[in-house]
Amino acid sequence: MKAVYYHGNRTISVGAAPSETPGAGEVRIRVGYAGICGTDLHIYHGHMDARVTFPQIMGHEMSGAIEDVGEGVEGLRPGDRVTVMPLHPCGECPACAAGHGHICHKLKFLGIETPGAFQTFWTVPAFTAFKIPDSLSLEHAALIEPLAVACHDVRIGEVKEGELAVVLGGGPIGALIAMAARENGARVLVSEINPYRLKLLESLGFLTVNPLERDVAELVNGLTGGAGADAVFEVTSSQAGAELMTKLPRTRGRIVVVGIFSKPAAVDLHRFFFRELKLFGARVYEREDFSRAIELAASGRLPLASLVTDILPLERLGDGFKKMESGGDAMKILLRCGE
Amino acid sequence: MKAVYYHGNRTISVGAAPSETPGAGEVRIRVGYAGICGTDLHIYHGHMDARVTFPQIMGHEMSGAIEDVGEGVEGLRPGDRVTVMPLHPCGECPACAAGHGHICHKLKFLGIETPGAFQTFWTVPAFTAFKIPDSLSLEHAALIEPLAVACHDVRIGEVKEGELAVVLGGGPIGALIAMAARENGARVLVSEINPYRLKLLESLGFLTVNPLERDVAELVNGLTGGAGADAVFEVTSSQAGAELMTKLPRTRGRIVVVGIFSKPAAVDLHRFFFRELKLFGARVYEREDFSRAIELAASGRLPLASLVTDILPLERLGDGFKKMESGGDAMKILLRCGE
Repeated sequence: MKAVYYHGNRTISVGAAPSETPGAGEVRIRVGYAGICGTDLHIYHGHMDARVTFPQIMGHEMSGAIEDVGEGVEGLRPGDRVTVMPLHPCGECPACAAGHGHICHKLKFLGIETPGAFQTFWTVPAFTAFKIPDSLSLEHAALIEPLAVACHDVRIGEVKEGELAVVLGGGPIGALIAMAARENGARVLVSEINPYRLKLLESLGFLTVNPLERDVAELVNGLTGGAGADAVFEVTSSQAGAELMTKLPRTRGRIVVVGIFSKPAAVDLHRFFFRELKLFGARVYEREDFSRAIELAASGRLPLASLVTDILPLERLGDGFKKMESGGDAMKILLRCGE
Repeated sequence: MKAVYYHGNRTISVGAAPSETPGAGEVRIRVGYAGICGTDLHIYHGHMDARVTFPQIMGHEMSGAIEDVGEGVEGLRPGDRVTVMPLHPCGECPACAAGHGHICHKLKFLGIETPGAFQTFWTVPAFTAFKIPDSLSLEHAALIEPLAVACHDVRIGEVKEGELAVVLGGGPIGALIAMAARENGARVLVSEINPYRLKLLESLGFLTVNPLERDVAELVNGLTGGAGADAVFEVTSSQAGAELMTKLPRTRGRIVVVGIFSKPAAVDLHRFFFRELKLFGARVYEREDFSRAIELAASGRLPLASLVTDILPLERLGDGFKKMESGGDAMKILLRCGE
């Protein structure tokens, strides 16, 4: 039983994990695979030190099997294969009262405000566990959490059959949004600057463009007879993305802000007026998005395998971070945890 | 038959108007009253010289009576009291094809791309004329165009019974949005810095706040048990408004951008993510908004009279501009035109 701990200041260590018996309403999961999220890298870089508790066990994208269940847990038993929707809403704030627990004013995110999945066993509230079908491998099931993000974004963006969706940023979330939008029947164009990712996305059948080499608005107008894109997903969190996102949509087109901007960005509000654009903020997912992600992942229709560029033992989380920092040939990196 | 002409560089003159016989599909209207819009002031200040044709007759908020109809005009006859929806869409662009003629890619706005209403007789396409009920005075009917803007904004903002709507900017459009939102059953708070307008809005029964004197977000949280506003209307076109608009809405609350921003504004996109906010651009109106505005104006329920602070003869347009520039005790200024 081991875990990787974050101590602040880009310092991590492998150590023994505390032995926990699940409390009432909890389940203990033997973690199969855990994906490294950009948020984990963000924590490692010290940007979220105010939210974590040292030493912090990170990780929230995972798959595994129930090892043990606490008192009062129904519908889950040892051996069940599961993934976790890592949200713990307060249940009492105005957002929870309005039925929006995923944007709870006091939301606890498992793996940030609580210990995470980068360990052998992970103990979580039973209501966060979702059973997965036997047909779904644990490797692919570790992608369900980011795929649920994508399903939420595409749902918020109201992507429909025959539409053109443009995804700004072709990392793991952007790629999964592209897949989910295509599942809704849309043509998808992904704008990305990393050549490795561009090539990978192209090989998956998506239209691609490097915005440093080509005028994306011109391309989109060409693809749509001058009308513009139906939906645009901003997944870069960059000023360049904030500028490009308003140039692409058609009249009454939709923009979904997926990227997490660390500071205000200059936005062309005139364009919102002029074309009656709509912008929707999207945050994590709701239960229906998790269910949809499980269904999609289990369908076998999504090329999930091609997104997993590396599988490392838990102890090598540091190498995973290095590869992500390099901006090179990586998409999703998984850790083997529960061995 | 006279008109006021704009010659560029803040120069206007009163002169003879061309004698026009309405062409096929056109109507000639004897103008009763014409409101001075912020857009007219904007033209006068030289900011729209690329769109107008010198010498330009401005004006697009008006009421009047049909004087004469051209060939093929049906449903309108001399003597009919009317107002005009001053939009001439191309009918062929992608926006028109999608049924969004009011945001046509090549929209001609009457009074900007064509001669306007600041004259004795105004000749316009018959399809732009809307009949008004006898019970509605021509003074109030001149407010229908800006009221239609407000109806459009409130419709786009999906304001519902029992909600809290916050209007940033309490000029004529902001005041009309406040009235239209209240008609939908909302409580309305208006944020404004002009003391005259604050007092007027308060006298009309609206909650008011001066953002220079009080923390608006704190006030809104106090009014909503910490939840936030359901809908926020940004009508200031200012950086301060762009900042405030994201601080006020509840989770999944709506922001409507009504103000016309001349340059990009710094916008807190993180807040869109964090609260899953929605932002809708709104531009002018559609036919249903005009119909709704006529219905509301004719109902007598709106305190329209209190918005008309001045009625000047057509020749005194320059004095109207001066009063608007002063930022003082003015709300809507009307010109008497067709005498």
